[in-house]
Amino acid sequence: MIVKGKHYKTVWLEGNTVKIINQAVLPHKFEITECPDHQRTARAISTMIIRGAGAIGTAAGFGMAQAVLEAPEKDFEAYIRNARTSLRNTRPTAQNLFYSIERVFRCIQETTDPEQARIRAVMEAEAIALEDINACKQIGEIGAKLIQNNFKVLTHCNAGWLAFTDWGTALSPIYVAKREHKNIFVWVDETRPRFQGARLTAWELQEEQIPYAVIADNAAGFYMQRGEVDLVIVGSDRIARNGDVANKIGTYEKAVLAKEHDIPFYVAAPTSTIDWDCTHGGDIPIEERSESEVVSVTGRDEVNNLRTVFIVPEGAKARNPAFDVTPAAYITGIITEKGIVAPEKLAKLKNK
Amino acid sequence: MIVKGKHYKTVWLEGNTVKIINQAVLPHKFEITECPDHQRTARAISTMIIRGAGAIGTAAGFGMAQAVLEAPEKDFEAYIRNARTSLRNTRPTAQNLFYSIERVFRCIQETTDPEQARIRAVMEAEAIALEDINACKQIGEIGAKLIQNNFKVLTHCNAGWLAFTDWGTALSPIYVAKREHKNIFVWVDETRPRFQGARLTAWELQEEQIPYAVIADNAAGFYMQRGEVDLVIVGSDRIARNGDVANKIGTYEKAVLAKEHDIPFYVAAPTSTIDWDCTHGGDIPIEERSESEVVSVTGRDEVNNLRTVFIVPEGAKARNPAFDVTPAAYITGIITEKGIVAPEKLAKLKNK
Repeated sequence: MIVKGKHYKTVWLEGNTVKIINQAVLPHKFEITECPDHQRTARAISTMIIRGAGAIGTAAGFGMAQAVLEAPEKDFEAYIRNARTSLRNTRPTAQNLFYSIERVFRCIQETTDPEQARIRAVMEAEAIALEDINACKQIGEIGAKLIQNNFKVLTHCNAGWLAFTDWGTALSPIYVAKREHKNIFVWVDETRPRFQGARLTAWELQEEQIPYAVIADNAAGFYMQRGEVDLVIVGSDRIARNGDVANKIGTYEKAVLAKEHDIPFYVAAPTSTIDWDCTHGGDIPIEERSESEVVSVTGRDEVNNLRTVFIVPEGAKARNPAFDVTPAAYITGIITEKGIVAPEKLAKLKNK
Repeated sequence: MIVKGKHYKTVWLEGNTVKIINQAVLPHKFEITECPDHQRTARAISTMIIRGAGAIGTAAGFGMAQAVLEAPEKDFEAYIRNARTSLRNTRPTAQNLFYSIERVFRCIQETTDPEQARIRAVMEAEAIALEDINACKQIGEIGAKLIQNNFKVLTHCNAGWLAFTDWGTALSPIYVAKREHKNIFVWVDETRPRFQGARLTAWELQEEQIPYAVIADNAAGFYMQRGEVDLVIVGSDRIARNGDVANKIGTYEKAVLAKEHDIPFYVAAPTSTIDWDCTHGGDIPIEERSESEVVSVTGRDEVNNLRTVFIVPEGAKARNPAFDVTPAAYITGIITEKGIVAPEKLAKLKNK
């Protein structure tokens, strides 16, 4: 997408360096973080300098490519296996992470020549990035058909272009609908604890000049009750074979509320998000992150410096599950690059 | 309740001055705000230096008493009518506000002697405060019967002693259960946008040494889904005659989720919260507060200064409804000082 008149992807490889839009400081600063080796790329993923299902996947693919580029020839395979392990350990829930790492890892198994492996790894990682962009663009075109003129759409967290390599998933249909000259209004769940809605989705929509309002996560039910939500679209970090969907904490609450109000609830995700080895949502590991994300908030102060403030009493206890699982029964449909499917019919996509 | 070894109420009258625990700076500072006249008391209510259904009611009663004490004899009635209007305009949703203002206003109608009026006004305001304390204590004793040993209770916002003159409503049964030596664990919804859960409920529970964890409002559904919530208790700012309940934004979301999981959902409130003139929840005016509460967060920095940080991009739009209405159908029971009633049987309490 375009930022300040220039086209950006969220993450790209330049020489041996992975470059990443630093999402930890957005929307307050627009900064590119340079990761000169795969360890730095891994750290950028675990510290959420880059976050979002597809963006993590692309970054991890590039991280694997970096590892192959870096690996000393006398210790080639062991070095790459170590890198694979450390990249896999960055975030436990995101399916695209494992998908990308394994794709790059598998592609280099087909050769014993390090030079060949280096070329293949970079090409495979670039292919993953490109497929992600194309899938997101497709999701936008397919999903836009669900959005009627003057619709008010609710979204949770950020499944916009920042969460992928470009375009995004939940927001992609909105971007396409905008280009089709439909009037759209977006309710943006702020998405505690890390405020990806308030920070990132609001920033994306503002850059795209799409009308929106940030709301406390608590207020979504209020607007549903008043008939001011026509459609809910969210992203996903992992989808089980039975159609259960892991996504940012709070997604499940929105799905239950949508069902209670008969509001269509869609999940937008490329098929790379589907974990065919996972039979149901209960098997998806849920990352529990640091209490500090709940008890403190980082934002910009009056002179535009980033600053952290503490909300709770000293010594307060908190819990911080980062994701939840929405059972298939609450989901109207899953918007993929191959079409919209009912969650219980997900298997149809497997060999498509 | 006891703070640092000393007994406090949230608000009290000393001479002509209303003294208030400043809830805008808790838990970071424990400060008493002095309001030397009714205008200052009104401002303390509108700026939420004092907040919470019962505490607002008591403060407004004292504010009316101040107005009667201040009123010049040559302009006695007009001055008091003006004060009544400005106190009524501080917060539109809280029933206890109107209840207290009108009680003090009515009691002085019975005399034409200013000296008599001054005595009556102060006595009536003190009576309101005392009735609030007694009702809350009763609610605690009645509600504690719902809490079994080892229960995990979810609460939203702060309906603890800080929200009333003492004891509180939603937390009062927990305090009583603790004194009955039951093991209790409390899930504390942080309660965006103003974090009354993270700031005030956490502080109260910590002072009372009751185990708890602050969670993002988004995480309540996750713990319900995992069977880790046995009971939900919330407070109320206004209850309609048909049992619909207005309370802090997000209460409705929790009620829908509780129903979906067959978790009992109780509202704890003194009968003074019931607005008998209000036939149903749709008639309760919902205060929409400033966008600034959503887009910025105030907390303490690393050197313990209060500081405000901005979360959203510059120029971001937000909406901020402060309350929502939970229809009676989602409520298991209303815990009042006169007993627990099903919401649809509320009318039974009218002449009790």
